Amino acid sequence: MRGAVMTAPGDVRVAEREDPTIVEPTDAILRVTAACICGSDLWPYRGADDVDHTPMGHEYVGVVEQVGADVRNVTVGDFVVGSFFASDNTCEICRAGYQSRCVHAYPMGAEGTQAELVRVPMADGTLVATPGQPDPDLVPSLLAASDVLGTGWFAAVAAEVGPGKTVAVVGDGAVGLLGVLAAKQLGAERIIAMSRHADRQALAREFGATDIVTERGDEGVAKVKELTGGLGAHSTIEAVGTQEAMTQAIRSTRAGGHVGYVGVTHDVSIDGTELFFSGVHLHGGPAPVRRFLPELIDLIWRREIDPGKVFDLTLPLDEAAEGYKAMDERRAIKVLLTP
Amino acid sequence: MRGAVMTAPGDVRVAEREDPTIVEPTDAILRVTAACICGSDLWPYRGADDVDHTPMGHEYVGVVEQVGADVRNVTVGDFVVGSFFASDNTCEICRAGYQSRCVHAYPMGAEGTQAELVRVPMADGTLVATPGQPDPDLVPSLLAASDVLGTGWFAAVAAEVGPGKTVAVVGDGAVGLLGVLAAKQLGAERIIAMSRHADRQALAREFGATDIVTERGDEGVAKVKELTGGLGAHSTIEAVGTQEAMTQAIRSTRAGGHVGYVGVTHDVSIDGTELFFSGVHLHGGPAPVRRFLPELIDLIWRREIDPGKVFDLTLPLDEAAEGYKAMDERRAIKVLLTP
Repeated sequence: MRGAVMTAPGDVRVAEREDPTIVEPTDAILRVTAACICGSDLWPYRGADDVDHTPMGHEYVGVVEQVGADVRNVTVGDFVVGSFFASDNTCEICRAGYQSRCVHAYPMGAEGTQAELVRVPMADGTLVATPGQPDPDLVPSLLAASDVLGTGWFAAVAAEVGPGKTVAVVGDGAVGLLGVLAAKQLGAERIIAMSRHADRQALAREFGATDIVTERGDEGVAKVKELTGGLGAHSTIEAVGTQEAMTQAIRSTRAGGHVGYVGVTHDVSIDGTELFFSGVHLHGGPAPVRRFLPELIDLIWRREIDPGKVFDLTLPLDEAAEGYKAMDERRAIKVLLTP
Repeated sequence: MRGAVMTAPGDVRVAEREDPTIVEPTDAILRVTAACICGSDLWPYRGADDVDHTPMGHEYVGVVEQVGADVRNVTVGDFVVGSFFASDNTCEICRAGYQSRCVHAYPMGAEGTQAELVRVPMADGTLVATPGQPDPDLVPSLLAASDVLGTGWFAAVAAEVGPGKTVAVVGDGAVGLLGVLAAKQLGAERIIAMSRHADRQALAREFGATDIVTERGDEGVAKVKELTGGLGAHSTIEAVGTQEAMTQAIRSTRAGGHVGYVGVTHDVSIDGTELFFSGVHLHGGPAPVRRFLPELIDLIWRREIDPGKVFDLTLPLDEAAEGYKAMDERRAIKVLLTP
């Protein structure tokens, strides 16, 4: 089969890779309908994470092509959505809703889903089948559920977004934008999107943002305070992963408020004294997307949300390299790849 | 009046200070029945915080001696409990339960409650009267409510302690020990106290600890994991404020679990990547003791809890210096001072 491989930072090639096979009786093999490039794939692309001939991709939707002997919940021919951690969905951690930290958690990035076929371990715990074969226009939204929507949703839940609340969103990538969408769905009264790019601002407004703040850092914080009677937001979503974004998120939040952070942290260090006196709640990490998949698939299936709008560039898998380039240069918010 | 003053690190004297007077019409003046020395008073005592002829003390119970023209909720003669931040108890932050971060928050340490008299700003929002004059044996427990009990209680609430949960407590000072008591009251199934001092272990057991872990750092973490099926505690209370304690608390907690931290942080820095992948919730800061005072006073009044047991040394105010010394040398858990 063909699959995307990052040979070195900045160098993505689509190469012939060995077809995956059933290794454990709980595995399934999917024929990938659509995969995509994640903001986090840009970390190794830019040299911030190690990479060396690494198969790429951890987001995916597809059709079950083969199942191991012990798979019960999905069958050949099902259209399924998974997420970036395979999980048993039965351990105590999974049952508490933290499938991304399942005691048997397996990172799908190790399989590389930007490919024609992919092996999914613990298929019963990991995959959720849609009610039927989706209309083609639903595929991007279902793919978004696989990571960016699930992650934005988790950030909003972690930030305790709810009716009557003011939410600030730091980061205008796909996750931040879908954090806006999640906040809207969860009933937020006011949603402040922090963005300085016109196209992303427009999408943020479409997803439910009521205010746009273009300032960053302490100026951005001051603006959020100004919009919230000097107190700060009740809930802040951090969807970048840098020191500046985390600091901005904490400082934008009122005492007793909640920061939900999902940007994959890079060289972030949180000052204990500042955090102590901020009085905020801090929660985040790799999103347990599996927790939200049934609900998200349902919302998409009933066409109540359209998170697929974050994909503003669709390319054949063979042109993956151009997709990485477009995202790196911020010409695209998020790139969908069709094998 | 006489009051304790820290002239320099390690040097506490009881000196003649000017009697406090009503400054604002919302002030009250209390005659202090009992005050005490806080673990946090040891930071300046040991030179970790600046100090220069500073009046000391922020915990207090007493009898209202005088009220300003606008005070409505307490009257002369009432026995009252306050906490270490005066608060209006009406602003949006107070109403959300974060009185320690009230928009008008005033640190009682600035008044110095280790004294015969003390001025309490925003008396209506700050003070809670007991149902009547307390029996003398209740005074230590009511004084504990003023800070250490309220702080331990907040830590347990911040750590989302509840029925069926396993709670780890890092720190065996008065706050940690009362975190154990709070965890018990809040229905925890198992309470692991981390302590290597026999007297504190005994009090922890009396307050409800089911297990004692004497190991510290990563060895302590390993022990907690061993006691929790490899997963870590659901809830961890951090009641020290050092880097080691915070790291130990985060690592002792399972993914999706909660760390409630109330140790006044000193040179603590939280690694963003470790926190991200820990998947824990982190909440804490200066405890909004005022939120809990009515409930805590009620529990004490009905003799359902006896938090005053943390006071293992009572001295007249004039011997405050000896009290500081005893706590610094760990000869006493907590020292009560009677003016």
